[in-house]
Amino acid sequence: MEKKSKEGLTAKKEEDNAKWYEEVCLKSELAEFSSVKGTMIIRPRGYFIWEAIQNYFNKEIVEKTKCENAYFPLFIPESFFKKEAEHAKGFTPEVAWIDPKLTAPGERLAIRPTSETIIYDSYSKWIRSYKDLPLRINQWCNIVRWETEATKLFLRSREFLWQEGHCVYETEKECDKETLQYIELYKKLCEELLALPVLIGKKTEKEKFAGAKYTLTIESFMPDGKALQCGTSHNLGQGFAKAFNIEFLGKDEKKHLPWQNSWGLSTRLIGAVIMMHSDNKGLVLPPKIAKNKIVIVPILFDKTKEKILKEAQKISKQLSKFNPILDDREDHSPGWKFSEWELKGIPLRIEIGPKDLEKESVTIVKRNNSEKIQIKIKDLEKKIPNLLDEIQNELFQSAKKFLESSAIEAKNFNEFANGIKNKKIIKTAFCNETSCENNIKEKTGASSRCIPLDSKKITGKCFSCGKPAKTEIYFARSY
Amino acid sequence: MEKKSKEGLTAKKEEDNAKWYEEVCLKSELAEFSSVKGTMIIRPRGYFIWEAIQNYFNKEIVEKTKCENAYFPLFIPESFFKKEAEHAKGFTPEVAWIDPKLTAPGERLAIRPTSETIIYDSYSKWIRSYKDLPLRINQWCNIVRWETEATKLFLRSREFLWQEGHCVYETEKECDKETLQYIELYKKLCEELLALPVLIGKKTEKEKFAGAKYTLTIESFMPDGKALQCGTSHNLGQGFAKAFNIEFLGKDEKKHLPWQNSWGLSTRLIGAVIMMHSDNKGLVLPPKIAKNKIVIVPILFDKTKEKILKEAQKISKQLSKFNPILDDREDHSPGWKFSEWELKGIPLRIEIGPKDLEKESVTIVKRNNSEKIQIKIKDLEKKIPNLLDEIQNELFQSAKKFLESSAIEAKNFNEFANGIKNKKIIKTAFCNETSCENNIKEKTGASSRCIPLDSKKITGKCFSCGKPAKTEIYFARSY
Repeated sequence: MEKKSKEGLTAKKEEDNAKWYEEVCLKSELAEFSSVKGTMIIRPRGYFIWEAIQNYFNKEIVEKTKCENAYFPLFIPESFFKKEAEHAKGFTPEVAWIDPKLTAPGERLAIRPTSETIIYDSYSKWIRSYKDLPLRINQWCNIVRWETEATKLFLRSREFLWQEGHCVYETEKECDKETLQYIELYKKLCEELLALPVLIGKKTEKEKFAGAKYTLTIESFMPDGKALQCGTSHNLGQGFAKAFNIEFLGKDEKKHLPWQNSWGLSTRLIGAVIMMHSDNKGLVLPPKIAKNKIVIVPILFDKTKEKILKEAQKISKQLSKFNPILDDREDHSPGWKFSEWELKGIPLRIEIGPKDLEKESVTIVKRNNSEKIQIKIKDLEKKIPNLLDEIQNELFQSAKKFLESSAIEAKNFNEFANGIKNKKIIKTAFCNETSCENNIKEKTGASSRCIPLDSKKITGKCFSCGKPAKTEIYFARSY
Repeated sequence: MEKKSKEGLTAKKEEDNAKWYEEVCLKSELAEFSSVKGTMIIRPRGYFIWEAIQNYFNKEIVEKTKCENAYFPLFIPESFFKKEAEHAKGFTPEVAWIDPKLTAPGERLAIRPTSETIIYDSYSKWIRSYKDLPLRINQWCNIVRWETEATKLFLRSREFLWQEGHCVYETEKECDKETLQYIELYKKLCEELLALPVLIGKKTEKEKFAGAKYTLTIESFMPDGKALQCGTSHNLGQGFAKAFNIEFLGKDEKKHLPWQNSWGLSTRLIGAVIMMHSDNKGLVLPPKIAKNKIVIVPILFDKTKEKILKEAQKISKQLSKFNPILDDREDHSPGWKFSEWELKGIPLRIEIGPKDLEKESVTIVKRNNSEKIQIKIKDLEKKIPNLLDEIQNELFQSAKKFLESSAIEAKNFNEFANGIKNKKIIKTAFCNETSCENNIKEKTGASSRCIPLDSKKITGKCFSCGKPAKTEIYFARSY
């Protein structure tokens, strides 16, 4: 039996999910609570995941959509917020202001909770003609929203990191098309990079972004029975253009209001990845976002120590493109090391002991399912990429299976309420009225997640209020 | 004669440098003033330069120094600032606080003007043993300092972007060594990537970082006769460790205070690049940081239009790795386009007209010196990298020549004052006393820039006060 690391998890995923999640984040050194209430520290192992997301997504948006990165101020004048009424109403409760003494007798400045208003103020100066369109700008930055509920690492904190894209188009059609394109790019990112299957759909009026015409969303479903919004793309219509006086001279030489969208994803995604894939031994990471893809643990006995160490160093050098950790510490047992690197989510473990060396091979252990494989040392470089792909794919398939088994249908309120109680995400027929949605939330704690984009034409009645159903929809409890 | 673009510069570099600089930044679309007083917008063309700096530097610090990126909170509790007395004194005047109502009855929160204190609070929890050292963490983030002087794009604004590295070591020797290593990496970045020669040296007691044992700096010298600090690396000694209770158990099993450094460079560097290389036609960028390295301007006449356009498209595709702009607009003359892309700093212009096509060649014009070269179309792909290297090198050499001709020696106060008046950077013998330094500043407007690292042993007297000289030093007016 392996000796457990003293640093191991004390809570179990299936028993106390919240405590388990926090332990995984802390003990795998992805993140930590800060001394400043409501905020968190993203440690190097966690920040590496954010950088992997940035690298992947920057490439996608530049190559596929000709979007460019830029940077706008952290501060937003109060009057800007007030220009779009719905937007102001939606964000004012959670805005952090800077000390009014700094700006008096001028107006107050907010710390950005989102940047539509400060960016569109610039757009009104930059856009003159149809030749300036489409305009596509993205920003990677920090965001502040003065949450009052307890901090949950990556999932809820007063400051987080995100990207926000802000595009302007001549026509509604282009705007519709690209609002969809960006949510589809998010879906691709989640599935390809993070091994995270998501549902894609439209938010209800109640749940849409403050100031948007409509909001598209991707939703993942977590093992504890809660949905997690992983990214949104908002068609803003012409409301902000009107409020910020963004006009362009069309090909017809007349002035027009353009159409706009905005879209964002945040460090919250890191929380989704951790929660979906990890287990009771600790962090499990899709290989594509793991900084160190391999840990090499030499099994040392007095007689063969030198030889084994030399071989381990050789292998480590040979596999350098996978950024391996060579754990040659002598004050810890192999079992202790196994636990430590399982806790920290290294995708592949290479064990090399005297018996392995005799056979010119090593033992490889896959983090996701503990599968053990013997591989000839000479074949390592060729076979490791396949093993990493295999893990990436197994994680995705297993998460997909979980999502599919969790999504059930409900024909009436009873079935619905039972499903929610049993931690399911429920597809059902819905009247699509806010009052009914409020009532459902109150009685079951579930909120609408999204109206599937490929929703079938619906007949029949709303499962809750009995009025004619207008749409299919997903409901679940959520983060 | 070429027709000048209406968008061209109105001020001249040598006549009204400040206005010229602002026009270059604005009209080349690198940056813009924001509606929020004291802040700026970094537009895509400018942000690309920052990304180039990030990519270059991330690679350097990860590969050469095993530093890792992380992210710490934007907010810093007031009590943290007060822990290191000199640090608190240095930064308090320019700190922006958030609205005290948000945190009452708790203590005030500052928006980070630098992150030593919030980061070292974490370090005190993370560091236990010599095995945890050296610890090297870097952060890319926004910084707020409540400047009261007028905004100068990239050079002075209430918010800017930077990186700050924070390392912890067992010994003073290691700390000294790496404090130097980081300033040398900055020098390398400036010279290799930005074609910006710099002086490297030590700050005086008066000019060092608040809370540091000593500060190393790189200083560039601008064509308007002012020095510009481009990056600093501070040996913090053990003062912060003491204030934040960072201790480690040494190999001797006793508790010790570690040694620390911090080092930073900011978007201000972009300002240095613009000011150094640009001219009266507009922006000049070192090719390595230019997003579009080439603009292709087809010279269109009715008869040959189709043929020329087709060839221009072919060339554009062939040179795609240089991210070329193909300017095939028909509502502007070639001359107008030449001016526009000169203004925007595209390093190489390819002109292709009927006569070029007959000879199966194109005309290439170098942005930095207007040199014209005929190149066979079939040779383009091979020769363009050489041309880009040539420009990069010419810019560096020309800036280096300027720096060398600007650095003069002064033996007495008269020579010194004349030199400063004549916009030179002056190397001189100095007593190294703060009172004398204050006096020089008051009388001439010049501040000490740095004590050269390779400073010779000095005899003789201080040029200003006549006391025994202790060191060589550079003085200049500065940004």
